[in-house]
Amino acid sequence: MEDGRLTRQLAFLREIDGMKKVARQTLLADGSRPENDAEHSWHMALCAALLTEYADQTVDISHTLAMALGHDLIEIYAGDTYAYDDAGNATKAAREKAAADRLYALLPAEQGAYWRGLWEEFDAMETPEARYANVCDRLQPLLLNMASGGKSWVRHGTAVSRVRARTRIIGEVSPALGAWVEEQLAQAVRNGWLKDE
Amino acid sequence: MEDGRLTRQLAFLREIDGMKKVARQTLLADGSRPENDAEHSWHMALCAALLTEYADQTVDISHTLAMALGHDLIEIYAGDTYAYDDAGNATKAAREKAAADRLYALLPAEQGAYWRGLWEEFDAMETPEARYANVCDRLQPLLLNMASGGKSWVRHGTAVSRVRARTRIIGEVSPALGAWVEEQLAQAVRNGWLKDE
Repeated sequence: MEDGRLTRQLAFLREIDGMKKVARQTLLADGSRPENDAEHSWHMALCAALLTEYADQTVDISHTLAMALGHDLIEIYAGDTYAYDDAGNATKAAREKAAADRLYALLPAEQGAYWRGLWEEFDAMETPEARYANVCDRLQPLLLNMASGGKSWVRHGTAVSRVRARTRIIGEVSPALGAWVEEQLAQAVRNGWLKDE
Repeated sequence: MEDGRLTRQLAFLREIDGMKKVARQTLLADGSRPENDAEHSWHMALCAALLTEYADQTVDISHTLAMALGHDLIEIYAGDTYAYDDAGNATKAAREKAAADRLYALLPAEQGAYWRGLWEEFDAMETPEARYANVCDRLQPLLLNMASGGKSWVRHGTAVSRVRARTRIIGEVSPALGAWVEEQLAQAVRNGWLKDE
């Protein structure tokens, strides 16, 4: 009944269930617990679907949504690396490449190459879709950090300069979203959630 | 800086964080805990992106992905109704309509109408996209139930006839996927996970 192709696709779909167990540093909006990679990817994809009008270039929305859904899949094996963890980020590329080699080999070859390509495109941040997807990837945790009273920032002693550098792409792609980010950062500093050194 | 439109869109994005707290009856593949609506929607959307070749009609993939991402949003207020809970299903429509009235009013009018329309289209199961999205909505928990040793079925004393009726759409849209479903159901009965009355 079942050919090898479908078996591989379903094995991949089962394997990526692991995304639900990769904890991020960001807390849910109510601060009750860390969100996981599956939840983040869903929230980011909805963000991408809702805010398309703010992208500075026309984006292919199905390409962008696939990128959002798949951009963190390698973390099933490589783990989540906190954006402001310098030591972790030094080894991130090698860990993620090994994870990609293992994960995408589960799929039929051309489909594995497509999904691996989406991840590489996202990381290179050059195409309109990758730039816009990165806007959503950075806006979504900012929204949650502000909603949860900056708890994750406070715990890590995060400096506003780090968050400003990480969210710079948002203002580059959309002045309107960039202005909103600046308001949030100013508020977070006033609240003592981010350090202004 | 910020116009009312963006404020409403971001308020909606914050509100839907509640999807991460709506527990479903289905357990994760490893059986460790119930999955939630955000995780399910993400997993189902990836399923839809990966298995498009099995749809019997051409589907607009961005439309399908948006539908997958948003099809359960009203459960933030209405809660998840287990597919095999007859009492809960008797009041489901009224609860969900009230939830939709409240939720989609958060968005700018035309955007609220679009997302509400996607949910209604999904539930009506008539368009190629809605039929295919429903295939993914029913295939994803089957994959998890099989992976987790049928624990959720056993807990509810579920009959194979109920699952067969609920997954019928899968075989209607794709004979290949339908054959896979039949194999799984036969295996689940042999394993004592589903009752064969």
